[in-house]
Amino acid sequence: MRPTVDALYRDWDNPAMSTHSTNAMSPWHVPLSPLVHRLVALALEEDLALGDPTTEATVSPSQRGVGTIRAKAALVLAGTAVARAVCAAVDPTIELTLAHQDGDRLVPGTVIGQVTGLVRSLLKAERTILNFLQRLSGVATLTARYVAETSGTEARIVDTRKTTPGWRVLEKAAVIAGGGHNHRFSLGSGVLIKDNHVDAAGGVRSAVLAAKASVPHLLGIEVEVRDLAELDEAIGAGAQIVLLDNMPLAQLTVAVRRAKAAGVLTEASGGVNLDTVRGIAETGVDLISVGALTHSATAVDINLKVVPT
Amino acid sequence: MRPTVDALYRDWDNPAMSTHSTNAMSPWHVPLSPLVHRLVALALEEDLALGDPTTEATVSPSQRGVGTIRAKAALVLAGTAVARAVCAAVDPTIELTLAHQDGDRLVPGTVIGQVTGLVRSLLKAERTILNFLQRLSGVATLTARYVAETSGTEARIVDTRKTTPGWRVLEKAAVIAGGGHNHRFSLGSGVLIKDNHVDAAGGVRSAVLAAKASVPHLLGIEVEVRDLAELDEAIGAGAQIVLLDNMPLAQLTVAVRRAKAAGVLTEASGGVNLDTVRGIAETGVDLISVGALTHSATAVDINLKVVPT
Amino acid sequence: MRPTVDALYRDWDNPAMSTHSTNAMSPWHVPLSPLVHRLVALALEEDLALGDPTTEATVSPSQRGVGTIRAKAALVLAGTAVARAVCAAVDPTIELTLAHQDGDRLVPGTVIGQVTGLVRSLLKAERTILNFLQRLSGVATLTARYVAETSGTEARIVDTRKTTPGWRVLEKAAVIAGGGHNHRFSLGSGVLIKDNHVDAAGGVRSAVLAAKASVPHLLGIEVEVRDLAELDEAIGAGAQIVLLDNMPLAQLTVAVRRAKAAGVLTEASGGVNLDTVRGIAETGVDLISVGALTHSATAVDINLKVVPT
Amino acid sequence: MRPTVDALYRDWDNPAMSTHSTNAMSPWHVPLSPLVHRLVALALEEDLALGDPTTEATVSPSQRGVGTIRAKAALVLAGTAVARAVCAAVDPTIELTLAHQDGDRLVPGTVIGQVTGLVRSLLKAERTILNFLQRLSGVATLTARYVAETSGTEARIVDTRKTTPGWRVLEKAAVIAGGGHNHRFSLGSGVLIKDNHVDAAGGVRSAVLAAKASVPHLLGIEVEVRDLAELDEAIGAGAQIVLLDNMPLAQLTVAVRRAKAAGVLTEASGGVNLDTVRGIAETGVDLISVGALTHSATAVDINLKVVPT
Amino acid sequence: MRPTVDALYRDWDNPAMSTHSTNAMSPWHVPLSPLVHRLVALALEEDLALGDPTTEATVSPSQRGVGTIRAKAALVLAGTAVARAVCAAVDPTIELTLAHQDGDRLVPGTVIGQVTGLVRSLLKAERTILNFLQRLSGVATLTARYVAETSGTEARIVDTRKTTPGWRVLEKAAVIAGGGHNHRFSLGSGVLIKDNHVDAAGGVRSAVLAAKASVPHLLGIEVEVRDLAELDEAIGAGAQIVLLDNMPLAQLTVAVRRAKAAGVLTEASGGVNLDTVRGIAETGVDLISVGALTHSATAVDINLKVVPT
Amino acid sequence: MRPTVDALYRDWDNPAMSTHSTNAMSPWHVPLSPLVHRLVALALEEDLALGDPTTEATVSPSQRGVGTIRAKAALVLAGTAVARAVCAAVDPTIELTLAHQDGDRLVPGTVIGQVTGLVRSLLKAERTILNFLQRLSGVATLTARYVAETSGTEARIVDTRKTTPGWRVLEKAAVIAGGGHNHRFSLGSGVLIKDNHVDAAGGVRSAVLAAKASVPHLLGIEVEVRDLAELDEAIGAGAQIVLLDNMPLAQLTVAVRRAKAAGVLTEASGGVNLDTVRGIAETGVDLISVGALTHSATAVDINLKVVPT
Repeated sequence: MRPTVDALYRDWDNPAMSTHSTNAMSPWHVPLSPLVHRLVALALEEDLALGDPTTEATVSPSQRGVGTIRAKAALVLAGTAVARAVCAAVDPTIELTLAHQDGDRLVPGTVIGQVTGLVRSLLKAERTILNFLQRLSGVATLTARYVAETSGTEARIVDTRKTTPGWRVLEKAAVIAGGGHNHRFSLGSGVLIKDNHVDAAGGVRSAVLAAKASVPHLLGIEVEVRDLAELDEAIGAGAQIVLLDNMPLAQLTVAVRRAKAAGVLTEASGGVNLDTVRGIAETGVDLISVGALTHSATAVDINLKVVPT
Repeated sequence: MRPTVDALYRDWDNPAMSTHSTNAMSPWHVPLSPLVHRLVALALEEDLALGDPTTEATVSPSQRGVGTIRAKAALVLAGTAVARAVCAAVDPTIELTLAHQDGDRLVPGTVIGQVTGLVRSLLKAERTILNFLQRLSGVATLTARYVAETSGTEARIVDTRKTTPGWRVLEKAAVIAGGGHNHRFSLGSGVLIKDNHVDAAGGVRSAVLAAKASVPHLLGIEVEVRDLAELDEAIGAGAQIVLLDNMPLAQLTVAVRRAKAAGVLTEASGGVNLDTVRGIAETGVDLISVGALTHSATAVDINLKVVPT
Repeated sequence: MRPTVDALYRDWDNPAMSTHSTNAMSPWHVPLSPLVHRLVALALEEDLALGDPTTEATVSPSQRGVGTIRAKAALVLAGTAVARAVCAAVDPTIELTLAHQDGDRLVPGTVIGQVTGLVRSLLKAERTILNFLQRLSGVATLTARYVAETSGTEARIVDTRKTTPGWRVLEKAAVIAGGGHNHRFSLGSGVLIKDNHVDAAGGVRSAVLAAKASVPHLLGIEVEVRDLAELDEAIGAGAQIVLLDNMPLAQLTVAVRRAKAAGVLTEASGGVNLDTVRGIAETGVDLISVGALTHSATAVDINLKVVPT
Repeated sequence: MRPTVDALYRDWDNPAMSTHSTNAMSPWHVPLSPLVHRLVALALEEDLALGDPTTEATVSPSQRGVGTIRAKAALVLAGTAVARAVCAAVDPTIELTLAHQDGDRLVPGTVIGQVTGLVRSLLKAERTILNFLQRLSGVATLTARYVAETSGTEARIVDTRKTTPGWRVLEKAAVIAGGGHNHRFSLGSGVLIKDNHVDAAGGVRSAVLAAKASVPHLLGIEVEVRDLAELDEAIGAGAQIVLLDNMPLAQLTVAVRRAKAAGVLTEASGGVNLDTVRGIAETGVDLISVGALTHSATAVDINLKVVPT
Repeated sequence: MRPTVDALYRDWDNPAMSTHSTNAMSPWHVPLSPLVHRLVALALEEDLALGDPTTEATVSPSQRGVGTIRAKAALVLAGTAVARAVCAAVDPTIELTLAHQDGDRLVPGTVIGQVTGLVRSLLKAERTILNFLQRLSGVATLTARYVAETSGTEARIVDTRKTTPGWRVLEKAAVIAGGGHNHRFSLGSGVLIKDNHVDAAGGVRSAVLAAKASVPHLLGIEVEVRDLAELDEAIGAGAQIVLLDNMPLAQLTVAVRRAKAAGVLTEASGGVNLDTVRGIAETGVDLISVGALTHSATAVDINLKVVPT
Repeated sequence: MRPTVDALYRDWDNPAMSTHSTNAMSPWHVPLSPLVHRLVALALEEDLALGDPTTEATVSPSQRGVGTIRAKAALVLAGTAVARAVCAAVDPTIELTLAHQDGDRLVPGTVIGQVTGLVRSLLKAERTILNFLQRLSGVATLTARYVAETSGTEARIVDTRKTTPGWRVLEKAAVIAGGGHNHRFSLGSGVLIKDNHVDAAGGVRSAVLAAKASVPHLLGIEVEVRDLAELDEAIGAGAQIVLLDNMPLAQLTVAVRRAKAAGVLTEASGGVNLDTVRGIAETGVDLISVGALTHSATAVDINLKVVPT
């Protein structure tokens, strides 16, 4: 019997389920992408370029305080690195100390961390910090639900390029935090030959061969196949991965078996949701790509309360 | 009896319900904010900085084509201006012609517009165009549902600063497309004195007076009040708007009546969802702010199919 | 009898007149707008992108020194925060210590502060620091003269959008330092319906109503009226502020009285200079906007002398 | 007898005095510096990033119009190239046609040019266009007065690095438009050894020799001398230009004569204003640098009236 | 007998050897990376930010002309797309018409193309156009020599990340123009486990398995092996490519044979130059990476002569 | 007899030849140009924007290490300041300690410096650090060879504007490190009238006079002359420097003598290489400009080995 979503939440505070140690080498520990610094600059410019007259009118410039960041719902945490970057960009004297890191599963009420500094600076940074943490933790939490639904199968849950423009690397890291895996980060990070490309190249075989002839050897070549004949063509041409889009489960099962026999990796996509994902996983497919991880995640509830000190 | 969500969708193709003409002067017709151009640049850099080897390997550089953008679900359209900016930034020779504009309510299958140009350029732009249109139309569509729920009341549905960092002006325009109204665009675009500020300033009265003494006269002054005593204090101090956060309906009704008598505008927030919003609106409150419009909107289904010409 | 400009200068070193404490919560204490950092980057790029061969040829790279910043004329200080940002951008090891802050009134000869560090870095930063301090203190000083001219009246001296492109937030802060108040910071920070808008909308009434119907509720609505009929129309339509442009004093007096009776704020503009401003203020008008504060301020004399240590 | 300021204005509409043809090859005809495009972007971001709700509420998005730019005072025009850049950045469909160019002397009432396009776009661009034109024409006009004061002498009026941060190349072009000449554009565009450098290098001679030994051969070497002994030292060391700062006229006359005899160019600075400049010029000095051209220029009156078409 | 470098040049004007048609789908036909536009902006800022006083003093602003770009040496052309971007950025009215495209082999004297426009603009753009074309064609030309040396073998000549900082995508395209292939474009565009990583992970096997467990499935996994034992370990762990660094030819031959038998791709590196590359290629290795393609390419001679029209 | 290239290398470790002390005031000690920070940002974005999955998969996030930067060939060091900037931009906690500075001549095997920090950060920064150091030291080393070839003559070796776009100020500093001198940094940093300008202005005389009439007095005026008649014309018109391009040695000798007699500086260019440069220098010419210093320098071998600590 497959695990339910409730089961996921029941295990929330079970230390054995923590993704913490297994994710110890994941992207959120490393220096941030320059793209993230540009997004943070944009976010602060849209909110703060003309100042914060409310705070300036009501809070003394020398007043210091501490803000507590707290999970108000069960969630998988993500976005702590960008929260730190927001603090530094608003006012480098803000100190952020974290009690948890990306990938931690938190029960409602958990203190995530604290920001300390001038109250004026904390209030200016507050909303941007929360907007990042809430959305990115939302992505991680939704990912964790898909991962839980497929536990015990061999399928990896992977994301897509259906991310929020400007947020690509942040949302990809949030998927990792949620226990998922990443599909390609950009058009340049892998070859994915879709139906348009197949038609333009004159068929699956010639498309795959064209890619093999020209693309960097470290880019894997994946091709979308619409039926078993195209699958055979893809295998014959030397594709490393096949994308099986919107196939009925029975056909998918056959296709997966045939691809595996040829040493070719399989990815399923289309019509994937929390109700269908386990059935798809049980076909033995290697990868299930889920646009919803990023295009349908919603913010999870996190708040930040500032008190003067 | 209040209109249901289904009712909203039934009226979808009713020309009389079109938001088109009433929104004729809304922000999406005007030159784009410089902030939008920076977000588009970031979006293209994260996806396209290292090229598109799949397309370059399989599509002839001289092949031209046309891509049809089509609604796959009932939706309120938003984001057409940024879609146009994406096309121009990827390749200025792409032509985008639109059959609809922001604010139009579309039934599934409706053609939104077409992009014409080199197939390579169309395929490079495709995903970014869709990522913008899907999310922004998602915001507009969700807004339209809240607006429909409150039809016949005097309440305006307004957004918050709980927007996607980097997307503030785009999401605010999408709220307008959905029939909602905008709260302040940035910390500098209005005074909103929250509990933190009240406490820092030593009470509602002194907070309001401090704001009146220093802030630009064109910024309205709104203050959060936690009970009727604070409401009276706010009115007495000359606040123009009061924020009534998380008040039970009965108390809210009293507060609204008392504020109206004093010529003070009222905003309700907290606990607002599609089930509760009509009840809140029926208290007579002027504004209902809904963070969910932007933090909980999900992508609506739109696709773009490219065919060679 | 109205205070003269000379009186202003006589009171310069009178501690009771210091704007220091009353301005304690003004914008110059807070983190700088991202716009200011971009202006500083531009300023350094235009002056320093290709190095400083004079200094590199004549000053040892290890020579340290101290530079004293001194007022050479009576002035109201402004721009200290951007001076600090210039130092940090040229060389983060420069230390700037300030003996005074924005809003302080200084007599000639007063030491404003000191910069300590490598002489090469001090000489590279010197001119940009002074160019900012001199112009911004010039704005503050001119503002203080207008404020002094209207002392004892109820009129606030306010600035306009006639600022130096790129310098908006800096000059607005300098106006505060001088004891003035700010009008809107940008086109998005308030509604100001001018004659063009009135004509386009078909009259004062319809313009005001259109604005009330669509603009964010935290933006105040101000409308320019050309005569008493339009004033009545504006009041009737619910404008919060009326702009009375270039009205003769007698007519202005009538208009102000009528607006006040209706609880509507009044702003006078046009033909305002140091000779006319007191007469205008004595009509009882609430706000007098003065483009000259920013478009006709000139640099005040401040110097920076570097000595080796 | 020297020409008066009034004389300058009387000759305003005398075609023979037009600076037009002699300046035909000056910088404002050429592609704009990348620095100017960055300043324009900053200017629009500070004013327009959050839209123009007044215009959007009151003006139809399809309404077209024409705006007339007119001189309201006697002035020397400058800044037309940046005005064009502002139009292009706000809305590329705005057309700007100019009846005059930089350097033209205009009488009050002269039409400078017209902008044609969507009224919404014209109103968004209006204030930024004027803020640039008014300040830059102010610089050109003030320069022209200094130039007129020294007519008939050999002295060139030159600017300084006391420019508005961010505006260096624009203000330098405005000085040319006013008939002046440019001093160095940046710290890297020439060697100017001031007292600080002299002291650091151990005297005038060693400072000049150090510069000759290391700086690019296309950078001229100028050195500040405080007395005739230092002048002789500078000449002996091979300086190409000497800066004579704040010298009494008698001493200046001697110094100029001695420098000229040695084939060395002379620059006077310090205490230069419209009353003193002719006396200084009559000493025979080659260059008179005037910080006031840029740090004390004020806006000249230019307006832009938009009418619908 | 292997082809000599001379042979390469003899075939230069042999149409059969043109790389033109086979490269018809290569990256230089596509919209430029945003990174290239940023590099062009930087290049123009460093050269043109403060204008071109020589040209402004000597060339009439209305003078038009045409500039002919001509190869002065035998070369493989590259960089035409960025040359076009330079023209557009200096002055959008410059027209560039090309007689050849990237990948064409040109004999000395060949006209590459022409630029038409204002002479002032042509002279401002000239040096930057040439600096790009000369260096990029130098990379393409050097690549073509390595490719010619290995003709008839199965080895692909591939580049490295030893590119000129800021020029990555341009130099990678130039390698394609020269007939070479690209290694990964960035650290994120493939997995290349070097000795440092192997040691950190505790051996070849655990490093490969760690990568397979976490990296996106479209990134190929390549691992450096120092001897045959590590080669076997890499094959066993499922590496897709092995890097054989600095192996003697005899050992390399054995390693290549063993890897091929296991279906694993092989890359040789280290000690590769024009004298050694053919011997390496004849071992049957699949890929030979050559840092020299980019770090040791020098400019080829191209000039641009402007004549007035 | 002139020094050979071998002689240069033999003197490599001779302390008396160190350029160290004489270059103590050269540009690499000073704050970096804003242009360099932009190039570093671009370099990191092209390599690191999408992360480093290899390192993230194989190296623990908490592992610290030290990397040793070592010369593998005889070289003149350059680029240490930008290497420091790369470290700071990748991860501000990286510490870089240098055992040598720009201008030092190093024998193979010399340790240049060490980087200490998180191994992940060191591996991310490694390639970019090396790419900068190798190319810039290559420029310095090649410059040193030209300087050595001309030792004992009066000729200065100077660079040109034939630099790598984006690298102007870095390569100019590397030329200084190699013992050369700089020609102008940008089109705005000096007047160099070439044949195109001469023709446009109607001859050498009118070109020089036009420049003298309009350009800033601190910009030297150099003019290309094609024969002795033009030389006389240039001298007569007051040019400060003459450029003698591609003249046979005999003619060059005459021209130099004649120019020197008139107190005019001479620059030779064209056909300069390591074989011809001494002959040119022996004509007594003052400056020899060598495009090859920057357009034909290749990377010198430097490596960076990271070991865990």
